[in-house]
Amino acid sequence: MKFNLGCQLNYEIYSDSTLIFNIAVCNNRFQNILQEDLHIAPDVPMDEYIPPELENRYIRVNSPPGNLEISYQATVEFKPFEEHPHDIHEVTPAKLPLDVLPYLYPSRYCESDRLMRFAQTEFGDLVPDYSRVTAICNWIYENVTYLSGSTNAHTSAFDTVTERAGVCRDFAHLGIALCRSLNIPARFVTGYAYDLQPPDFHAYFEAYLGDRWYLFDATRLVPRTGLIRIGTGRDAADVSFATIFGSVFMSKMELFVDCISPGECPIYTEEAIAFLE
Amino acid sequence: MKFNLGCQLNYEIYSDSTLIFNIAVCNNRFQNILQEDLHIAPDVPMDEYIPPELENRYIRVNSPPGNLEISYQATVEFKPFEEHPHDIHEVTPAKLPLDVLPYLYPSRYCESDRLMRFAQTEFGDLVPDYSRVTAICNWIYENVTYLSGSTNAHTSAFDTVTERAGVCRDFAHLGIALCRSLNIPARFVTGYAYDLQPPDFHAYFEAYLGDRWYLFDATRLVPRTGLIRIGTGRDAADVSFATIFGSVFMSKMELFVDCISPGECPIYTEEAIAFLE
Amino acid sequence: MKFNLGCQLNYEIYSDSTLIFNIAVCNNRFQNILQEDLHIAPDVPMDEYIPPELENRYIRVNSPPGNLEISYQATVEFKPFEEHPHDIHEVTPAKLPLDVLPYLYPSRYCESDRLMRFAQTEFGDLVPDYSRVTAICNWIYENVTYLSGSTNAHTSAFDTVTERAGVCRDFAHLGIALCRSLNIPARFVTGYAYDLQPPDFHAYFEAYLGDRWYLFDATRLVPRTGLIRIGTGRDAADVSFATIFGSVFMSKMELFVDCISPGECPIYTEEAIAFLE
Amino acid sequence: MKFNLGCQLNYEIYSDSTLIFNIAVCNNRFQNILQEDLHIAPDVPMDEYIPPELENRYIRVNSPPGNLEISYQATVEFKPFEEHPHDIHEVTPAKLPLDVLPYLYPSRYCESDRLMRFAQTEFGDLVPDYSRVTAICNWIYENVTYLSGSTNAHTSAFDTVTERAGVCRDFAHLGIALCRSLNIPARFVTGYAYDLQPPDFHAYFEAYLGDRWYLFDATRLVPRTGLIRIGTGRDAADVSFATIFGSVFMSKMELFVDCISPGECPIYTEEAIAFLE
Repeated sequence: MKFNLGCQLNYEIYSDSTLIFNIAVCNNRFQNILQEDLHIAPDVPMDEYIPPELENRYIRVNSPPGNLEISYQATVEFKPFEEHPHDIHEVTPAKLPLDVLPYLYPSRYCESDRLMRFAQTEFGDLVPDYSRVTAICNWIYENVTYLSGSTNAHTSAFDTVTERAGVCRDFAHLGIALCRSLNIPARFVTGYAYDLQPPDFHAYFEAYLGDRWYLFDATRLVPRTGLIRIGTGRDAADVSFATIFGSVFMSKMELFVDCISPGECPIYTEEAIAFLE
Repeated sequence: MKFNLGCQLNYEIYSDSTLIFNIAVCNNRFQNILQEDLHIAPDVPMDEYIPPELENRYIRVNSPPGNLEISYQATVEFKPFEEHPHDIHEVTPAKLPLDVLPYLYPSRYCESDRLMRFAQTEFGDLVPDYSRVTAICNWIYENVTYLSGSTNAHTSAFDTVTERAGVCRDFAHLGIALCRSLNIPARFVTGYAYDLQPPDFHAYFEAYLGDRWYLFDATRLVPRTGLIRIGTGRDAADVSFATIFGSVFMSKMELFVDCISPGECPIYTEEAIAFLE
Repeated sequence: MKFNLGCQLNYEIYSDSTLIFNIAVCNNRFQNILQEDLHIAPDVPMDEYIPPELENRYIRVNSPPGNLEISYQATVEFKPFEEHPHDIHEVTPAKLPLDVLPYLYPSRYCESDRLMRFAQTEFGDLVPDYSRVTAICNWIYENVTYLSGSTNAHTSAFDTVTERAGVCRDFAHLGIALCRSLNIPARFVTGYAYDLQPPDFHAYFEAYLGDRWYLFDATRLVPRTGLIRIGTGRDAADVSFATIFGSVFMSKMELFVDCISPGECPIYTEEAIAFLE
Repeated sequence: MKFNLGCQLNYEIYSDSTLIFNIAVCNNRFQNILQEDLHIAPDVPMDEYIPPELENRYIRVNSPPGNLEISYQATVEFKPFEEHPHDIHEVTPAKLPLDVLPYLYPSRYCESDRLMRFAQTEFGDLVPDYSRVTAICNWIYENVTYLSGSTNAHTSAFDTVTERAGVCRDFAHLGIALCRSLNIPARFVTGYAYDLQPPDFHAYFEAYLGDRWYLFDATRLVPRTGLIRIGTGRDAADVSFATIFGSVFMSKMELFVDCISPGECPIYTEEAIAFLE
């Protein structure tokens, strides 16, 4: 499948400011950037950083006061890895690859240490495989209301499990926290989402099962096969689309994701989807 | 039924201290104190206060440094009011007696304002009568582990609903918070409990249904017909058995509750139990 | 001093709803209602409740779907009690009137139990009299930013002490919590405030010192001598200007407070102000 | 300086369990392990993992039910890097090395996003250099009581800033959170501490200033020149000395740290101390 996607972000900058963006998609064999264009006006200093262990692309922009416009556009060839979920099992801490460990630990918005009993009560007796993470997603979908404006940048999984409302970021945080409470490594993913209405940056999560990371989205807002990855982290703190240091007001945000492969656009599926690196 | 009950509390007092006790049972037609004895050694200043709107008996003791022993013993004739629960309905805020309103509002340990969606999701569709409060108690009993030492004086219903462990006070707070979230007035009660093992002050709760307060105990530790009331309040902050101002160490606490009416001691029942004043 | 004051509140009611208002001022020798008018349109059922121990006036309105307009207007003769603050001392728990006790306990928005060490560190060494409560107000004024929209209905003193922003209600909650942490009884008050810009219901607090309740306002937004009392409670949960049960949208809120005693309108003072009943 | 150090940890294992230890010191030019010995009895499976970007040594042990004893001993040549603190300045986000960014973001126990205003109020006007981090440490030392048992595994910086009591881990978390709130990257460090009484694993923190990580310890319990590093992370979640999956009880923990370089043992200093890799 091929996608044409991008965003336009405008800011009013009131003092010398630094902005760190996660808006460029990551690039590898399975999510291949055929062409991309990043445009910043005015022409201010910018650098990019890709950490060694992940494929995130942190773009730093240092801007003087005034208007700042950043636009990004890419054409991506994308091939999700699909698999029957039947034989995908959890891996015990005894056998997990040790580099996956940090995704078992609690993080700012995923206080898994405080949800142990809750997770045990609700999901402790389920079969320890792919279907248990699906059960977590179903529980979230059925018990948490998707409600714009109901949460803010401080809201965490511990809040959401009681307050029962949130947006995609909160759904992902709760899924991650519950997985970690059950000793399933889980991490936060952001991306461009085909068919998301209204268009926005999307957040979902991955759980480590079998020998790789599988993709889950408790919001059920879009097909998982149409998620083009931007960044991966422990939670939203790591991969906010824009982290801002300074006095800044966002005056415009627009996104688009078009499928340009007629006849093979993303559809809903019950297959397990993995993102291979 | 007649009960002989009491407690012995010893303290080491390190500085001039004030202690406010809720250990004496309340007295009315339906819970009639036949005889009682309160003994404090040494003979320090003491006064008692019974607020106009409740029957709580606050006993204040001002003690110099040294040892303090307080013992209480009472013989009580007790007649619980029992009723078939079938025709006991919730009362909407439109018709509630207005003096009951404070028990609809959130309090320190019962943050009902933060549990609205949770309560709606779990219990919102149930029939609005006595059976809905029973459903809340059943949910607590099934989902929260009774575990000594798992909580402390700061633990609230908002914590317990996620952490899923607690003692009688936490069970009561959660029951109260959930009732209030559904617009059912609810309040905290402490008492001596027949057959509680190990003996301790017990906490449970009341919900206002029909035209009176009915008694509920999500711990299922003792028969509700054997609960002899000490105090009533919004939550544990109001009726702690001992509120201490000063530097004090409790060195001993012993309780006893004996049923002295052979052949008619408390048993478990599915009837609705009310405490009439 | 005489004031002409009032409010106009309009609601869109989407389902049968109950609204409980605290908008009428309380009436006694020192705050004497010369004339008042409460108007509700359409003419729906309404009742009023004044609890025995306070002078709050709870007005309940049961409304069918449609528009609801409530307007209140009163002319009040008001004489604040002023006193030199020099000889007003704290009262230890050993000597407090016992009916004041509930205002020593933590409540929903004033978690004094969690602020003990903080209060001791900041204010523990100060002289235990009127000036210590003034020091608390000064600390709040200097360390917390008054910022509309920075908090919501769930925000409590424990949040504010760290987040350091809030509105009048949050300033009052923090003042109350800090007083209680130091064993000074404190309670929440709402009122009409002369010269408040923009006009709104105001919240402040009282501390029990000497033999009465003295008024404090850490916001410094208005003179304390121009505060005409509506209600008193443990915290905002007790005396919200409108508690709503049902599906309701507030479409308009307007207030006015005019001083109609030329030449003797409220001014800022350093005197202690008490509200006598 | 040379140190001989180590620990002995005994566990009772009740079910097949996995334990991940951070007890071995890290090894590099400036902290050179001359000799070390890790002994586990019985002889159960074990593996070690050193992440690419840090020098932490995660040791995983999979144990069947029964007793487990793990002992570690090392001789280390250690040369702290000391420097005059006068010319060490903060680095703005505009110029920070981008691989340091994750240490600017909030983490589980360091909710810097919720302490922004607090940090600005207390430390916002200070000179943005080494002395500001010292001021943070001084504030913590003066306002937080070191009190064993006052906190638990769920306690975070947001709690500590109000509750004002904690242990070394809490002091470090608060220091880190305050630094990050001021845009100073900060991270959590654990180590063996010379002269710590009673001997225990110690926690402290590092702030990124100038062009490297400098060491701070708000507890003032030991000289910073006697801290031999075990692990580094975002907060305690990353480098707990033992993370346990399974049913396990720790029955013994003993540590020792001996300085075996007569005449040059660690002393308190006001120099800046860095740990070079």
